[in-house]
Order: sequence, then structure tokens, then C-alpha cells
Amino acid sequence: MARVVGFDQHPAQTLRAGEGFSLAAVDPDSTPGYSGNKDDGKLLLAEMDDELSGLQEKLFAESRFGGTKRVLLILQAMDTAGKGGIVSHVMASMNPQGVQFKAFKAPTDEEKSYDFLWRIEKEVPAAGMVGVFDRSHYEDVLIHRVHGWASPDEIKRRYVAINEFEARLTDSGTKVVKVMLHISGDEQKERLLARLDNPAKHWKYSHGDLDERAFWDDYMSAYQAAIDETSTPDAPWHIVPANKKWYARIAVQQLLLGALSGMNLKWPKAAFDVATERELVARS
Amino acid sequence: MARVVGFDQHPAQTLRAGEGFSLAAVDPDSTPGYSGNKDDGKLLLAEMDDELSGLQEKLFAESRFGGTKRVLLILQAMDTAGKGGIVSHVMASMNPQGVQFKAFKAPTDEEKSYDFLWRIEKEVPAAGMVGVFDRSHYEDVLIHRVHGWASPDEIKRRYVAINEFEARLTDSGTKVVKVMLHISGDEQKERLLARLDNPAKHWKYSHGDLDERAFWDDYMSAYQAAIDETSTPDAPWHIVPANKKWYARIAVQQLLLGALSGMNLKWPKAAFDVATERELVARS
Repeated sequence: MARVVGFDQHPAQTLRAGEGFSLAAVDPDSTPGYSGNKDDGKLLLAEMDDELSGLQEKLFAESRFGGTKRVLLILQAMDTAGKGGIVSHVMASMNPQGVQFKAFKAPTDEEKSYDFLWRIEKEVPAAGMVGVFDRSHYEDVLIHRVHGWASPDEIKRRYVAINEFEARLTDSGTKVVKVMLHISGDEQKERLLARLDNPAKHWKYSHGDLDERAFWDDYMSAYQAAIDETSTPDAPWHIVPANKKWYARIAVQQLLLGALSGMNLKWPKAAFDVATERELVARS
Repeated sequence: MARVVGFDQHPAQTLRAGEGFSLAAVDPDSTPGYSGNKDDGKLLLAEMDDELSGLQEKLFAESRFGGTKRVLLILQAMDTAGKGGIVSHVMASMNPQGVQFKAFKAPTDEEKSYDFLWRIEKEVPAAGMVGVFDRSHYEDVLIHRVHGWASPDEIKRRYVAINEFEARLTDSGTKVVKVMLHISGDEQKERLLARLDNPAKHWKYSHGDLDERAFWDDYMSAYQAAIDETSTPDAPWHIVPANKKWYARIAVQQLLLGALSGMNLKWPKAAFDVATERELVARS
């Protein structure tokens, strides 16, 4: 059997956006902290599946006995960066009963009539759940900034509101894991062309993606600003180089494993006398 | 590579509850329509994963271009019969983005203040989605009948309401797949003992399961009555022998495959000129 190649340095450290972080300095082709190749990465991904689903079951089990811990994975990225692949390849090992998935689209008229966090609050994970946001409240400081849909003052207000919102999530038992999947403009071009070349992928292509692509540099500035303003000690951003899909997947898997491992999860103790119940069942 | 052993007869036929169906005549240990063993079954399950997820992606894709088709899998069973295992082993291959999972627990006070279908209606799958109900509106004609929480007349009213409700789902584009996982009383005893013998499973054990177990025969009568009254041509019941978990999983997988295959799903046609877009992307 092939030897499993693990990370040399944990992505929670190497990919974390700290003081003085520069998005421009991150190479989307790189594989920080990992010396293995694609095959190694795929093997590692499969190998860690059981540990991830085991931890998730423990989180779920705790909540059945009053536990209030939860996890929220926030995924942000340019189009085609692979958010969907993270969901189907990393989250798939978890029991769907314990995963709350939400893809945020353009807000409805009703949603627009409230402050931007109104629709987000309704989707935060319940106790014991792993929530996954495919896009999030960060759209309100990214696309809104790029297209000037909100004033600079309003964008500033939102950064503050986001930090307070996420601090409240953290304080009430939610481990917030923020991930930006970072691809290069050239890689996006390749992926868009690949969609056009495969009729089974045409439904994923939208001319709108091309329109947004023209604002690439503005998006990178908006991401840099959002990361600067909202990468807090309790809810830091992780910038995951994503030109190599296999790397992005094992990196996000490690971030989730790290988050869950750090929660000190335990199987709930039986609230009944095991021997007595065993006797009752045996006689039933 | 091992040869994949498929079904001799499709579960959609062999497990379907038709005219004169008798639950008592179903052997929970049997593997109708399948001559393979456990290893064969596991191989088949893995082998069909890609087809299932491919069909689900097509269903999802259609909805992005106006399609209104959807699937609703309704799972009913006695405790420990393996509903959770179906969700984690059969549904896991599907992209979580396209799956709406809902476990119905004892109704809240608010839910009780409405008719029994009120909370159900809110959870039916959206266009393009595969909905999974872990328990359902059938609890209102099963546990309610067993414990006399509703009068015989009220139970009859509910059968009619259920048939009308499911007919409406069908008529508006939902393929309803109803599954009863059928285990024997002895098998349940073994599974309860196994939970008690494993500290990591104690959280799944509840003394209440033992209380309900005492009403086994009444439950079987309630299932028989519900199946008699609600196994309709468009939304028939399938009784899946479930003492062998591996068989229950491949049988439900086949029921889903059959349902999706029968929906005549197609990749949406590009609503744009592919060559033009290709040129625009290449130049971008």
C-alpha cells in the first residue's frame, strides 16, 4: 500500500492571513506546506475521510446532549475557483444529516429590504452542525465594492458589522473557518474554455462570469481590503492557492480537521445505567 | 478487477407494494432480485455512485434553465433499521448542493397547532433538488395510530389528505419514492445491544426505543394499513428487507437510479453561441 504523505506544516498556520498579508504575494500555483504530488494529495484526501466524518459525528452527538458547539465554513472565490468541488469532495465524507449547506445567490427583493446580515443570520448552523456558506456576507463588501453598489462609508460600516457578527458567532460556540480559494486569471480562462468545450458543462457557463472577469484587479483589491479588515484572531482568513484543485481540497480538509480537533469533542456519557438497559433489551 | 453483480430483477418491481400486499409475508432477511453476496453488494454500491451523482447533476442543471422536476425520497422504518446508513452511504455520492435533507422529530408546539401537513409542505424539495425525508407525514398515521393519539376517523382523514398531497407533488413534477426499511424484531434487539456495547454509540440509544419496541405488532399493523391506503400507482410504497444493511443500501440506490432514469433528464442546451463565447473568453 502506498505511503500517505501528510503536510509538513499545517495550513491553519501557513495559509492564515496575518499582519501585513499581501494577496498579490500568494502564488495560486503553489502548494504551501505540502511536498507531495497530485497522487499523494488524492490519497491523503481519501485517507482522512474517516477522521473527518468521525469528528463531525462527535460534534453532532454532543449537541444531542446539550452541546452548543458548531462549525461554519465560509467559502469565497472568483468564479470557477472550485467551491463546488470542495463541497462535493471534502464535505461529502460527512453525514449529510450534520451538514447545513447554503449557497447565497443575488439577494431577492425581500432580502434587499433588510440589512445585509438579515438573510445570513437565518442560515447560521444549529448546534452540532457543520454549516457551509458558498458565498456569504462577504459578497456585500466584494462585488458591492467593485461595482460601487455601496459607498465607501457603507462598506466600512459593513466590515465593522461583519466583525461583530462573527465575534458573536464565535462567542456563542461557533468555530468560524474562512477560506478564499485563490486562482489566477489565466487558470480561470482555462476553466471557462473547458466548460465551453464540454456540452455537459454548458449549463455552468454564464456570460456574466466573463463580465465579472473584466474586473479581476478590482476584485483582488476588494479581497485584499476585506481580508485586511476582517481577518481577526478568532476568525482569520485562510488564502488557499487553488490552481491545483487537489491541493485546495486537502488544504480545506486540513482546516476543517484542525477546527474540529481543537474543539475538544467527546462522545456523550450514557445518562442511563448500561447494564440495566442491556438486561431490559435482552429480555424484550 | 472483480466482476460487478447487478440485480436480476429491478427493486422498483420486486419491492413494490401492490394489490394484496402482505407485510407479514416479507422476510427481512431476504434479498429480492439479487443473487450476489455482501461483497458483491458493496462493489455494486460503489460502482453505481457515479451514475447516481451524474443523474442528480442533470436534474439540478435542468432546474437552472427552468426545469421543475424534483425527487422526494421518503424513508420510514422502526428504530435502528438503518435510515441514517441510507443517507450516509447512498445519498453521500450526490452533491450536497442538490440534496435537501430533513429529519422530522416530534412536532413542536407551533407545529402541533397546524394540520399535520403544514410542517411537511415547508420541506418539500425545490426544483432540481433531491429531497430526503427521514420520517415524514407517515408518523401521523403510524405512531399516532399505535398510541391512539388520533381517532380512527382522523387517521382515515389523514390517509386521504396524504394521497391528495402526494398526488399534487407528483402532478407538479416531483417523483415520490416511498421506502419502508423492514427489519425483524430480533434484528432490532441485536442492534440495540450493539449500541449499548459501544460507548461511541451510547448517544444513539434511548430508553424510549425500548418502549416503542413493546408495540412492535401494533406498528406492523399500522404499517400494513398505511401501505394499503397510500400505495398509489404514482407514489407506491417499496418494502425493503433491511436485516442485511448492504442489501437495503443497493436496493434504495436502485430505486433512486430508476426514478431519475425515468425522468428523461437532459443537459440543458446552451442558450448562447458557443463559438462566440469561446472567442470572447480566449481574448479576455
